[in-house]
Amino acid sequence: MKELGIGIIGTGFMGKAHAFAYRAALAAFPEIPTPRLRMIADVTAEAAAKAAHQYGFEASTSDWKALIADPQVDVVSITTPNTFHKEMTLAAIAAGKHVHCEKPLAPTLSDSEEMVRAAEAKGIITQVGYNYIKNPLLKLAREMIEVGELGEIYNFRGQHAEDYMSNPENPYTWRLDPVGGPGVIADLGSHIIGMARFLLGPVTEVMADVETIVKSRPSGPGAKERTPVLVDDIARLMLRFGRGCGGMIEANWVATGRKMHLGFEVHGSKGGIHWNAEHMNELHYYKAGREPRHMGFATLEAGPQHHPYGRFCVAPGHQLGFNDMKTIEIAEFLGAIGGAPKAGPDFREAFEIQKVVEAGIRSSKEKKWVGM
Amino acid sequence: MKELGIGIIGTGFMGKAHAFAYRAALAAFPEIPTPRLRMIADVTAEAAAKAAHQYGFEASTSDWKALIADPQVDVVSITTPNTFHKEMTLAAIAAGKHVHCEKPLAPTLSDSEEMVRAAEAKGIITQVGYNYIKNPLLKLAREMIEVGELGEIYNFRGQHAEDYMSNPENPYTWRLDPVGGPGVIADLGSHIIGMARFLLGPVTEVMADVETIVKSRPSGPGAKERTPVLVDDIARLMLRFGRGCGGMIEANWVATGRKMHLGFEVHGSKGGIHWNAEHMNELHYYKAGREPRHMGFATLEAGPQHHPYGRFCVAPGHQLGFNDMKTIEIAEFLGAIGGAPKAGPDFREAFEIQKVVEAGIRSSKEKKWVGM
Amino acid sequence: MKELGIGIIGTGFMGKAHAFAYRAALAAFPEIPTPRLRMIADVTAEAAAKAAHQYGFEASTSDWKALIADPQVDVVSITTPNTFHKEMTLAAIAAGKHVHCEKPLAPTLSDSEEMVRAAEAKGIITQVGYNYIKNPLLKLAREMIEVGELGEIYNFRGQHAEDYMSNPENPYTWRLDPVGGPGVIADLGSHIIGMARFLLGPVTEVMADVETIVKSRPSGPGAKERTPVLVDDIARLMLRFGRGCGGMIEANWVATGRKMHLGFEVHGSKGGIHWNAEHMNELHYYKAGREPRHMGFATLEAGPQHHPYGRFCVAPGHQLGFNDMKTIEIAEFLGAIGGAPKAGPDFREAFEIQKVVEAGIRSSKEKKWVGM
Amino acid sequence: MKELGIGIIGTGFMGKAHAFAYRAALAAFPEIPTPRLRMIADVTAEAAAKAAHQYGFEASTSDWKALIADPQVDVVSITTPNTFHKEMTLAAIAAGKHVHCEKPLAPTLSDSEEMVRAAEAKGIITQVGYNYIKNPLLKLAREMIEVGELGEIYNFRGQHAEDYMSNPENPYTWRLDPVGGPGVIADLGSHIIGMARFLLGPVTEVMADVETIVKSRPSGPGAKERTPVLVDDIARLMLRFGRGCGGMIEANWVATGRKMHLGFEVHGSKGGIHWNAEHMNELHYYKAGREPRHMGFATLEAGPQHHPYGRFCVAPGHQLGFNDMKTIEIAEFLGAIGGAPKAGPDFREAFEIQKVVEAGIRSSKEKKWVGM
Repeated sequence: MKELGIGIIGTGFMGKAHAFAYRAALAAFPEIPTPRLRMIADVTAEAAAKAAHQYGFEASTSDWKALIADPQVDVVSITTPNTFHKEMTLAAIAAGKHVHCEKPLAPTLSDSEEMVRAAEAKGIITQVGYNYIKNPLLKLAREMIEVGELGEIYNFRGQHAEDYMSNPENPYTWRLDPVGGPGVIADLGSHIIGMARFLLGPVTEVMADVETIVKSRPSGPGAKERTPVLVDDIARLMLRFGRGCGGMIEANWVATGRKMHLGFEVHGSKGGIHWNAEHMNELHYYKAGREPRHMGFATLEAGPQHHPYGRFCVAPGHQLGFNDMKTIEIAEFLGAIGGAPKAGPDFREAFEIQKVVEAGIRSSKEKKWVGM
Repeated sequence: MKELGIGIIGTGFMGKAHAFAYRAALAAFPEIPTPRLRMIADVTAEAAAKAAHQYGFEASTSDWKALIADPQVDVVSITTPNTFHKEMTLAAIAAGKHVHCEKPLAPTLSDSEEMVRAAEAKGIITQVGYNYIKNPLLKLAREMIEVGELGEIYNFRGQHAEDYMSNPENPYTWRLDPVGGPGVIADLGSHIIGMARFLLGPVTEVMADVETIVKSRPSGPGAKERTPVLVDDIARLMLRFGRGCGGMIEANWVATGRKMHLGFEVHGSKGGIHWNAEHMNELHYYKAGREPRHMGFATLEAGPQHHPYGRFCVAPGHQLGFNDMKTIEIAEFLGAIGGAPKAGPDFREAFEIQKVVEAGIRSSKEKKWVGM
Repeated sequence: MKELGIGIIGTGFMGKAHAFAYRAALAAFPEIPTPRLRMIADVTAEAAAKAAHQYGFEASTSDWKALIADPQVDVVSITTPNTFHKEMTLAAIAAGKHVHCEKPLAPTLSDSEEMVRAAEAKGIITQVGYNYIKNPLLKLAREMIEVGELGEIYNFRGQHAEDYMSNPENPYTWRLDPVGGPGVIADLGSHIIGMARFLLGPVTEVMADVETIVKSRPSGPGAKERTPVLVDDIARLMLRFGRGCGGMIEANWVATGRKMHLGFEVHGSKGGIHWNAEHMNELHYYKAGREPRHMGFATLEAGPQHHPYGRFCVAPGHQLGFNDMKTIEIAEFLGAIGGAPKAGPDFREAFEIQKVVEAGIRSSKEKKWVGM
Repeated sequence: MKELGIGIIGTGFMGKAHAFAYRAALAAFPEIPTPRLRMIADVTAEAAAKAAHQYGFEASTSDWKALIADPQVDVVSITTPNTFHKEMTLAAIAAGKHVHCEKPLAPTLSDSEEMVRAAEAKGIITQVGYNYIKNPLLKLAREMIEVGELGEIYNFRGQHAEDYMSNPENPYTWRLDPVGGPGVIADLGSHIIGMARFLLGPVTEVMADVETIVKSRPSGPGAKERTPVLVDDIARLMLRFGRGCGGMIEANWVATGRKMHLGFEVHGSKGGIHWNAEHMNELHYYKAGREPRHMGFATLEAGPQHHPYGRFCVAPGHQLGFNDMKTIEIAEFLGAIGGAPKAGPDFREAFEIQKVVEAGIRSSKEKKWVGM
């Protein structure tokens, strides 16, 4: 199996998650091309060198263009803030590199579309960081829906609620700058929209109510003056899916008390399932038609029977964590570069998700249903 | 303390719940007027006589008008199907009786309004059977919101999902007849709408998506032919509250696997709460600002510190059940007749709930936000 | 169906629970003899009269002997502190009354044995207040074990842990007086021992570690001096059952934070179940041999398919509470008086439970296994 | 920071976990010596070479002695079956290597003691694979106990229950060969005993009931004849701790339905905690003395405030998994080699755990309490 030179741009929250994943991918998935940890870039040479040591990369740089230009780099992971995604991605594509770009692709739909077109024109493999759907139990859920175990699908209900913006006295940050795109509807909403699409397929129409809750924040740590907040804190969406059913979604980053309340419930004529990232190793499954006194939601604990859990541990119930999801994502990406079927989500899929996001924002402004 | 003669019309699901509640009310709440179980009515004299024995009523009748006419009946509980509510209620009001009417008041908003006006004109005490908000933990939740323990309220998310209509091969029943009013939005939706109002106050606008999922059902048990279903199976609502925040609600009777998935989550600037009837004796409360490593949702188990739990049991954690909620509801109703402050929900409140239901149906048809 | 005159002695925690139950029994179980609420006794005439009004009894008395002597009283419920049980019970038996006595029967095993013999000699119907096993889901659990759905039984693990004695600064009370019998092993331990016996049959041997945790307490509210505590706060038991398997039990009234942590887990060759009173309307059932990817504990929510839930509510998931368990217990008792099969636990069974308690205490002292 | 050459012997369940951990350790803990993945050994050269590629080791061998002899190997991880531990460990110690040996150290206490003495005589750093206590929430629990947040400790209750031996028709395996040591009391029991010691300190006495449930098994896959099973399937222990309190433990590998039911509950005079590996990212904490209506167990979700969670992810609630616990364990081991304080458990601690195991077996045979 050939080797793939890896380059990561950015070493923050997501940069670290990528580093963990590239280090673990082959150990879990020996069939993929061997990732060679070639180069890592950060804003200063010192930070980059420190990261190279920590994550085991051969080289480091403060010049992301140098990373892209390195002939030994075959794959580029872009984990910088949203506003940098487009420029870096287009450069990497131009250099013929395969690209993993963190979500969302770009602040605006047109920028994202440009990225999709460039990638497709060049024929490279792309990936976007919707890691939660890499959970073996999400794969199981999707398969159950596909093969008809839930029967005809009636309904989807989902939410991604956290509370990192809940305290109105927390200072204004770059995350709130509309230059980076919408607020929670893009940041968290895209995860649950992507999950809905992963499970049920295309969304065709959306009706949304998108609002800013904390209207202003201290301009900085300890600041007396306040900066107005223009992006959304809560987004509520009603959806129609191409397959015929409807659904509802909440994205919320002021959900006081919630740390990772990402979850969904799907009902069908033959069964129902629900899942929540707070107990990410459990899928709850109700099969209609069992003996009445024994009917109830079964708690399916992730185990080797749920691929690819067994790649991490041969015993059931030992649990995967966040970084393991990222490892699956990266391994599938590298596998696709090596010729395996694409698992996605690729740029195209991320663009489709963003279309729902944008439709939601427009729907909220115009107070009407908006088609894709 | 004076005595109140009780009459119940109907002995089905709700009739039985009323009977339990009238029998238990004084035992739990000795300060209320003494209910004297005077008369019970059912469609046949035999059924009524059987119920009178079972529930300990002095008399029985197959003529509900006789029950209302009985001078020893001071209070009438109407637990018949929706289509009978109005006639019976107006008759009882005309006779000067206090009336408890099961929800929803009537199939149409105008009928309900007529009932409200008649009751208010006569000055009688009314009650409608929104029993779930009688839970001591719901009273706690409301009080926490009122006194500001959650800070400024950001959001409401709620649902009432069950699955008794989930199987598409279950035959058509009177419940599905549009003559009785809308479908799930009235049957279950009214509970969660009422709960939202109980906690957060008036709803001012609604945007809904209301749909029929199972388009036809066998016309009867074993029938080959199918009857088209015209009422809704799922209702999704986005709400705006008078206090300024927004919210989202799902009402669903095809939620395969769910038996009593009635619950809500409220987020505020200082805390969050969530509750679900599946674990009805637990309220989950997150208080912002605790020492970081010790922060988390606390599971508050109902106990005597949560009034009126202590009226049923002096020890915490022993749990109340469905019939106990009904007992609280009935006791508060009798207490109000005796001069205690009205706890509601009265006819007026039920009418307000129904206005949200009707606005939802209209919103869905017109595909736009509708004000109250 | 004949009528049975009811007399209750004591109107505290358990007296109230009995009153609720006698008031509700016929409404839920119309096939039983009709309870006529004849007389209630308390220490003062005023308290008794107040209780008679509140609970709907015809008469009241401060003289429990008068209650027993009343020819219209057929059934006597004894809900006073343990030290009074024997005298009252023997008097009631001598008068030919059927007797419900709250647990434990008496402070000493020999006293209890005397009560059992007197009752059996007279041929009256007896009942003891082990209400938790009246839960429809406990009946289901027992039936599953009996018919072999769990296969050969491997193991029992159970506990009854609460925290009402946890605070070492809470004053000494009569509950701690050894004149009333042992401590937590009798108070809470008897519940979980009784549950183990209900599910798995006789216990043949016990090895225990029984200890006093809070060695002294303030002698009274606000007292400076402290009274030594002689009864046990925690009891740990290893058990052997007559059917061949073993088990383990903890009884604990200093389990800080636990309010009603009564529960068990049973494993067998074909399945496993677990249940906890904290979620008393759910039984968790694992059936071995299902399709691997769909295997997990199913959460069985109590519903009408679990007798006698349907006697309280026709819809599943609406939940029973503590007082409903008591109603089932009382109804089964009255039913047995009326000729239906005895459901127990009767005095004999309570005596068998107490033998395990006493064996535990002896085992702990002698530091060895003790047979029954 | 210096480099440490790593050698792993064995590539099965635990070998893979070690490989993951050595690959991730520096990424999470950049302050530790740099692990250089030097050599991996398996029974065949092919398997070893395959593992070397998959896990990124420089070299491979089918001769574990060659691995130990390699001067570039500083640290040896021994992940082979128990019966090989002693020989390999003593050889590694003799060569001056630091040793990580999987649990249990050896089949017999005397063999383990020999290993402890050899290691201590040589002054090497040792580690044993009790990974579950590496959970950030276990560290929090221990710290809470140490600093007195729970007050005086009253009680410990714990269990490690799984079901991989539950099916009596599953064939006999090497795991059941008594040559490898005791059964579940060593395999799972040592985890929960180690956890009890980690939280509460030394165990001084034990009383146990240790039994074989499935008395014989098919001698091999599809075999008609059956092999008798001599090791234990369930072990029940009552404990006394040096600090004065008592406790109870169950180890069980026939707990039908349970996959990773490892957990504990600790009660003290000021609070209580409970935790279960089924929801390994949650610690439940009850603090006595809060405002009554707001008291309840708080669900503490693992986050960066719980060291070393933040080394894996900066956002709370994203969850760690099994392999992350192993990474912490390995990183602490490497850190200790580099001069940081030893976190353990080292050979000495593993030996102490095994003493409890052996005392339990002797106690069960002799039917009496056994001191350490």
